Amino acid sequence: MTRNEAQGTSSIAYANPVLIMGSGNIVGQMENEGPLSGSFDRVSDDKNDMFGEDSWEKAESAMQKQAVALTLQKTCARANDIRYLFSGDLLGQNIASSFGIKEYNIPIFGLYGACSTCGESLILGSMSVAAGYADRVIALTSSHFASAQKEFRFPLEYGNQRPLYASWTVTGSAAFLLQGADAGASPAGGGRIKNALESEYGGKVGITGVTVGKIEDFGIRDSFNMGCAMAPAAAWTISTHLKDFKRTPEDYDAIFTGDLGNVGQQALFNLLEQENIDISANHYDCGMMIYDAQKQDVHAGGSGCGCSAVVLSAHILKQLAKKQWKRVLFIPTGALLNKTSFNEGQNVPGIAHAVVMEAL
Amino acid sequence: MTRNEAQGTSSIAYANPVLIMGSGNIVGQMENEGPLSGSFDRVSDDKNDMFGEDSWEKAESAMQKQAVALTLQKTCARANDIRYLFSGDLLGQNIASSFGIKEYNIPIFGLYGACSTCGESLILGSMSVAAGYADRVIALTSSHFASAQKEFRFPLEYGNQRPLYASWTVTGSAAFLLQGADAGASPAGGGRIKNALESEYGGKVGITGVTVGKIEDFGIRDSFNMGCAMAPAAAWTISTHLKDFKRTPEDYDAIFTGDLGNVGQQALFNLLEQENIDISANHYDCGMMIYDAQKQDVHAGGSGCGCSAVVLSAHILKQLAKKQWKRVLFIPTGALLNKTSFNEGQNVPGIAHAVVMEAL
Repeated sequence: MTRNEAQGTSSIAYANPVLIMGSGNIVGQMENEGPLSGSFDRVSDDKNDMFGEDSWEKAESAMQKQAVALTLQKTCARANDIRYLFSGDLLGQNIASSFGIKEYNIPIFGLYGACSTCGESLILGSMSVAAGYADRVIALTSSHFASAQKEFRFPLEYGNQRPLYASWTVTGSAAFLLQGADAGASPAGGGRIKNALESEYGGKVGITGVTVGKIEDFGIRDSFNMGCAMAPAAAWTISTHLKDFKRTPEDYDAIFTGDLGNVGQQALFNLLEQENIDISANHYDCGMMIYDAQKQDVHAGGSGCGCSAVVLSAHILKQLAKKQWKRVLFIPTGALLNKTSFNEGQNVPGIAHAVVMEAL
Repeated sequence: MTRNEAQGTSSIAYANPVLIMGSGNIVGQMENEGPLSGSFDRVSDDKNDMFGEDSWEKAESAMQKQAVALTLQKTCARANDIRYLFSGDLLGQNIASSFGIKEYNIPIFGLYGACSTCGESLILGSMSVAAGYADRVIALTSSHFASAQKEFRFPLEYGNQRPLYASWTVTGSAAFLLQGADAGASPAGGGRIKNALESEYGGKVGITGVTVGKIEDFGIRDSFNMGCAMAPAAAWTISTHLKDFKRTPEDYDAIFTGDLGNVGQQALFNLLEQENIDISANHYDCGMMIYDAQKQDVHAGGSGCGCSAVVLSAHILKQLAKKQWKRVLFIPTGALLNKTSFNEGQNVPGIAHAVVMEAL
C-alpha cells in the first residue's frame, strides 16, 4: 500500500504507521489501588483527588494539563512542536479541556464522543498526521469521578445507592503524542524529540488503521446501565472493522473495549455471536482491568473518557512496545446522554471508535 | 501545488478545492423576519419554533435532521453516499446532534467548538475529503434560542433583562455536503449526485484552505459579553491566517466573522489595528447580518452555532456561486464557557476557526 486508503464502510488504512511517540497519564488514588497499581506516571496525593484545585472541574483541568506536561517531558518535545491538539472530556461544553490546555497555546479541535473520546481523538489525530497536515499532534482526554457524578447523576452528598450493573467513573487523564513516519527528518524539533516508548520499552508502536463508529440505539433508558447502552455500538464497530479490513478476531492478539464492564461485555458477546463472531478468547475491557470489581466495590467496572485512555497509556502501549503483543484493536465506547435527555425520557444511544495499534 | 500542504503556524492549503456540493438550512420565525428574510430553505411554522416536538432540545434535534434531509434532497444524495458526518451543537454532551442524526446511520465525529463549531466541522470535513479518506462528508451544526438560554443563562420564564452588549442566540441549523474534486468519477453515487450550488446559481464553490484556531483568554468574565470574549480569538486567527498564507485583507472580497456583534466587531478592529491589519473595508459579521438589531431588539446581534452556519448556507455560498465574490474568509467564533465554569468564577475564553471559500 503506497497511500492511505479508505476501507469498506467506515475504515481507513494508513500507508505508513502513525507513531505513538509517548504518552503521559495521571490518575486518582483509587485507580492506583487496582490491578494496574504502580503502572501510572502520576497519582493524586490527596484522597479527594483535587490535584491542588478548589473545584472538581478545575481538578479535571489540572489533570489534563499534567498529562500533556508529562507527555512533552517524556518525548523531549515543547508545546510549540505540537501543531494541533485533539481533546475532549465528559463535562458540558468540554470545560475540562478548554481550561486545562489553554495555556499551551496549541491550536485545538474540541471533540465530544462521551467515553469514546479517546478513540475519536486518536482517529482524527492520526488522520491529520498521516495526511501530512501536521508533523506532530497530541490526543488528550480525561474524566473525574466527582465532576462526572455532578454532571450526569446525583450530588455525591446524597450518598445514593448504585445498582450492581452501574460502573464507576475513572479519575484519570492521558495524552498521546502522534508523529508522522517521516517527521523525524523535519527541521522543527525532529532531532530533539525522542520516541519515549522505544527508548523505555524497546520497541516502536504505531497506529495502522482506524474505524469510525456510528450511533446505535437499542432503546436502553437506564442511564446507570451504560454497558448495555454501549454494547451494540461496540458490536457494530468490531463487526464493521473486521469486514472492512477482511480480518478475523484471531488477527489480533488482544481486543480492548473501553468501558463496557462485566454486564456490557456479556451483551457484546451475545450480539457478536449473532454474526458468528467470537472474540471471547482475546477480549479485554479497560473498565474491568482498571479496578478489582469485588474488592473495590465498583460493581460493573470502570467507565469515563479517562478509563480507556489511562489503561492504554499505562498498560497497553507498554506491552506493545515490549512486543508482548504484535497487534491490538482498541475500541473506546461512549454513551450519548445528558441530564436533560435523560430527564426528558430519551434513550441512551452508544458509539464506539476503533484504532489498530501495532508493534513495529 | 500538487499536494495538500501545511502552511505556517496553523493552516493547511489544499492541492484541489474541496467542493461544497450543496447546503440545506432551516430557521425560526424571527430569523426570517430579519434582513435575510426569504433566503432560507425552511422556516418554522410555529411561533415557538418547536418544529413539531415537545421540548426545545428535541426541536433543535429536529432542525438538524431536516437540515441534513434538505442537503441530501438538493444534491440527490442518499444517506449512505455520505461516509462521515461531522457535527456539534451548544447543548451539554452534544445531545442536539446525537439525537438529531442517529437515524441516518452515518459514522459520526462529535465536535465541540461552541459557536465556532461550523468552522471546526468544515475544517475537519474538508481535511478528510482532501486527504482521500472520504468521497463525501456532511458538516452540520445548530443552535436554538430557547435551548441555549436554558443551557447557559436563565430560564426564559424569568423574563430577565439583557444588557445592551448581549447577543441573541439564533434558532437555526445548516448542513454542508463536501465532496472531493475527483469523487465524481467514483462509483458510489458519483453520477447521480449533483452540484446543487452550480445548478441553482451558476458556479461551483470550493474550500481551498483552513486555519485552525487556538484558545485566547483576555480575562472577560461577563458571560453576556460574548463579543469581547471572542474578539481576541478572531484577531489571532485572522492575523495567523494572513501570515500563514502570505495574504492581505485585500486578497479577500469579504471577511465574515461568526457572531461578534457590534460590540465585538469594534474590539476586533482595535486588536487588529495593533498589528497594522485593517479589515474594516470588507468585514461583515454574521451576527450583525441575520437580524435588524434596532427593529428586532436583539441588542448586539445574533450568536450561536447556527448563526454563522445559516448565514453561510442561505447567503454567502449563493453569492460565491453567483460569482459576486471570488474569495471569502469565513471565521466562526466561539466562547468557551458553561454554567459551572461561569458560576465558579472562571473566565470566558474564545476560539475561532477560519475557512477559505472560493468561486471556482
